[in-house]
Amino acid sequence: MAVSALLTDLYQLTMLQSYYEEGMEDTAVFEFFVRRLPEHRNFMVFAGLEQVLEYIENLHFSQEELEWLERSGRFDAGFLDRLEQFQFSGDVHAMPEGTVFFPDEPVLRVTATLPQAQLIESRLINILHYQTLIASKAARCRLVAPDKTLIDLGMRRAHGAEAALLAARANYIVGFDGTATVQAEHDFGIPIFGTMAHSYIQSHQSESQAFEKYAYSHPDNVVLLIDTYDTRRGAEKVVSLAKSLRKEGITIKAVRLDSGDLLELSAAVRCILDDGDCRDISIFASGGLDEYGIAELIDSGCPIDAFGIGTRLNISQDSPSLDCVYKLQEYAGQARRKKSEGKTTWPGCKQVYRHRAKNGSFNGDLVTLANDMRGDGEALIVPVMRKGKRIKPAETLERIRERSSDQLASLPEHLTALADSAKSYPVEMSQGLKVLAEQVDKQFAGD
Amino acid sequence: MAVSALLTDLYQLTMLQSYYEEGMEDTAVFEFFVRRLPEHRNFMVFAGLEQVLEYIENLHFSQEELEWLERSGRFDAGFLDRLEQFQFSGDVHAMPEGTVFFPDEPVLRVTATLPQAQLIESRLINILHYQTLIASKAARCRLVAPDKTLIDLGMRRAHGAEAALLAARANYIVGFDGTATVQAEHDFGIPIFGTMAHSYIQSHQSESQAFEKYAYSHPDNVVLLIDTYDTRRGAEKVVSLAKSLRKEGITIKAVRLDSGDLLELSAAVRCILDDGDCRDISIFASGGLDEYGIAELIDSGCPIDAFGIGTRLNISQDSPSLDCVYKLQEYAGQARRKKSEGKTTWPGCKQVYRHRAKNGSFNGDLVTLANDMRGDGEALIVPVMRKGKRIKPAETLERIRERSSDQLASLPEHLTALADSAKSYPVEMSQGLKVLAEQVDKQFAGD
Repeated sequence: MAVSALLTDLYQLTMLQSYYEEGMEDTAVFEFFVRRLPEHRNFMVFAGLEQVLEYIENLHFSQEELEWLERSGRFDAGFLDRLEQFQFSGDVHAMPEGTVFFPDEPVLRVTATLPQAQLIESRLINILHYQTLIASKAARCRLVAPDKTLIDLGMRRAHGAEAALLAARANYIVGFDGTATVQAEHDFGIPIFGTMAHSYIQSHQSESQAFEKYAYSHPDNVVLLIDTYDTRRGAEKVVSLAKSLRKEGITIKAVRLDSGDLLELSAAVRCILDDGDCRDISIFASGGLDEYGIAELIDSGCPIDAFGIGTRLNISQDSPSLDCVYKLQEYAGQARRKKSEGKTTWPGCKQVYRHRAKNGSFNGDLVTLANDMRGDGEALIVPVMRKGKRIKPAETLERIRERSSDQLASLPEHLTALADSAKSYPVEMSQGLKVLAEQVDKQFAGD
Repeated sequence: MAVSALLTDLYQLTMLQSYYEEGMEDTAVFEFFVRRLPEHRNFMVFAGLEQVLEYIENLHFSQEELEWLERSGRFDAGFLDRLEQFQFSGDVHAMPEGTVFFPDEPVLRVTATLPQAQLIESRLINILHYQTLIASKAARCRLVAPDKTLIDLGMRRAHGAEAALLAARANYIVGFDGTATVQAEHDFGIPIFGTMAHSYIQSHQSESQAFEKYAYSHPDNVVLLIDTYDTRRGAEKVVSLAKSLRKEGITIKAVRLDSGDLLELSAAVRCILDDGDCRDISIFASGGLDEYGIAELIDSGCPIDAFGIGTRLNISQDSPSLDCVYKLQEYAGQARRKKSEGKTTWPGCKQVYRHRAKNGSFNGDLVTLANDMRGDGEALIVPVMRKGKRIKPAETLERIRERSSDQLASLPEHLTALADSAKSYPVEMSQGLKVLAEQVDKQFAGD
């Protein structure tokens, strides 16, 4: 099931036919932004730009798709000829991936002919929504567990194949150590982890036999799952196996717990391992965890060294969507504004300036018109594509990880807590932007 | 980003290497089931079988994938040779798609060599979890609005490309009328709907001009979005346009509201349209809806004819995951059981019998061992694949829609309400199954 140019909403195509017919091919500016913070979030982390650029660069209609559209009887021949020629030749500006951002701040801007900028809307949102959603939650896991190993185990209950892969990417760029999803290493170079499931234990005649067979089969990567029958007894079996394996030069790296009271069991297992002269065996825990469960375990002083985080992260369980949109802000040199109830937008082509306190911590953003006088601080929106071509090669994930690490370290402390911050981060609209909004309201008020 | 054989958890591959090394290639039985009802659900609807069968039939490792695995240094040459030959040659039994089911009932059973049955786990869950999740929520939308047109608008905020497409399918099989996602018609033949976004209105010099241009460009499908600036004034413009279009033989089919108080606005718009001699123009509403919002609007007597349902449905906002698993139940002729705290499974190869009351309504299920005496009622698990080949061609979506319609109509009334039912549906475990569970516990208790 390949992603095709037809992965879009029908209205993009019906609008396009009208735009072409009406000769509406002047330059349009669309911006992608989040209208409000999702529940349980004090900030967001931008992710998914790379996949958007890939999509835009490669977007075209194949002969098979064009013939299918023709057979549908919905479109005229002139329009289908235009679609056959379709190629994106506009500009894209954006915050780099891994940047922290806030509501009402444009994070990506597309400047292109109206049909071009319009057609990409649905898929662009589909890509940016999900990765930004997941990066924003994964960042909270990293913040509560700065010194722990964090592994993404969420493939199986992510919403489909692409979600599984892009979640692995989003998690990694905000500081996860890796994922269980093999294709994520193949496609993105993300380190992968994994050893055995309960079925492996169950299919053997005994748990001890399963442990031993596994150790000889994968001597360099012995992590044993000890909760299939009874966790404490599993740990005891590990201790006795460790002794015999040592003679063969095989080291057990870790045990894994995947059920029960992880605080109580990890403490009990740590004791059993330490008493059995297995201080070097670390404890990996998983099962229904996300930032809340991890924080509670760490606060309680549990001796867990690594966490596996699955379903709750890759569906963003406590807040599974962002109210994000991609809106027309300017057409043919004139600023535009949507006034629908509760969905009013800020018009025009914009820039975001971020100001830092002397200690490096973020202390306020100013949203201006892009052609306003330069604001104080760092301009977050930078050019990434010109005339349909990338300006620079794709950033490495390592580079994005460094940025995101700096960004998270620069967050004001009240935003890094898991609880909703009573004080929101200051995002101010510039005077020039407010004046423009009033002008646009007057101009498009009546007709 | 194509779905490859590498879309799996690393532990599937590490376990497989061990199974091959140990010669553990006897027959295994795995079953897929849901451990408990998700929050806010009284029943589930099974969906995604077709994509699982496609996956299983086509699963193989390409030369490029095998070389990549080799370069990773994790696996030995003998294992990679086995992977090169990999082909699924087992049997699959399942409930047909569109079947209502309950916790602890197996919905799909795989009988194959242990390595074969094991390898498919991660992606099988990934496919069934999402479609079943969405079908189960979409069914609630259909139940609260039996006579309304329901359209899926959720592509952009579904979690990635595949989620968007499979949600359109899951929604359609439980009775939605269609989707906005073009590729869903291309891939699955699902009817598509769509006309214009706010950007279309905004890019014109006036709302009236946008309406008129659209009507002439798409005279057969005139649905006008009237909330960009002021919904009531938008409706008035539609009335005056309708008069002039009538002379040209063009009919306005509907208006669409996408913001504000939909109850108040739909009533106001209905009045404006009726007073303006536009009784035939129907009202299409969207914006933050799912079964709760729709039920409230319908209960309040709103004059809305069709609902567009997006984000909240395609991420299953009120319950974004299912606690579903695929577990080893039997290996080499011996039943197996996982005993992890809170995650105990029922062992053995099972069947589900559903009993109906005289009026046709479901009144209880019995889970038995597959080779028990036949229970009362209908056996829900049927063979679908034998020795790696499908037994029958894929079911049409229309056939699945009919089944799901019958299933939803046969639900006991207390389960069809949106509120959590105080009384859960009776699912009984047979005596034979309980005896087997005890036997397995004794056999695998110690070692």
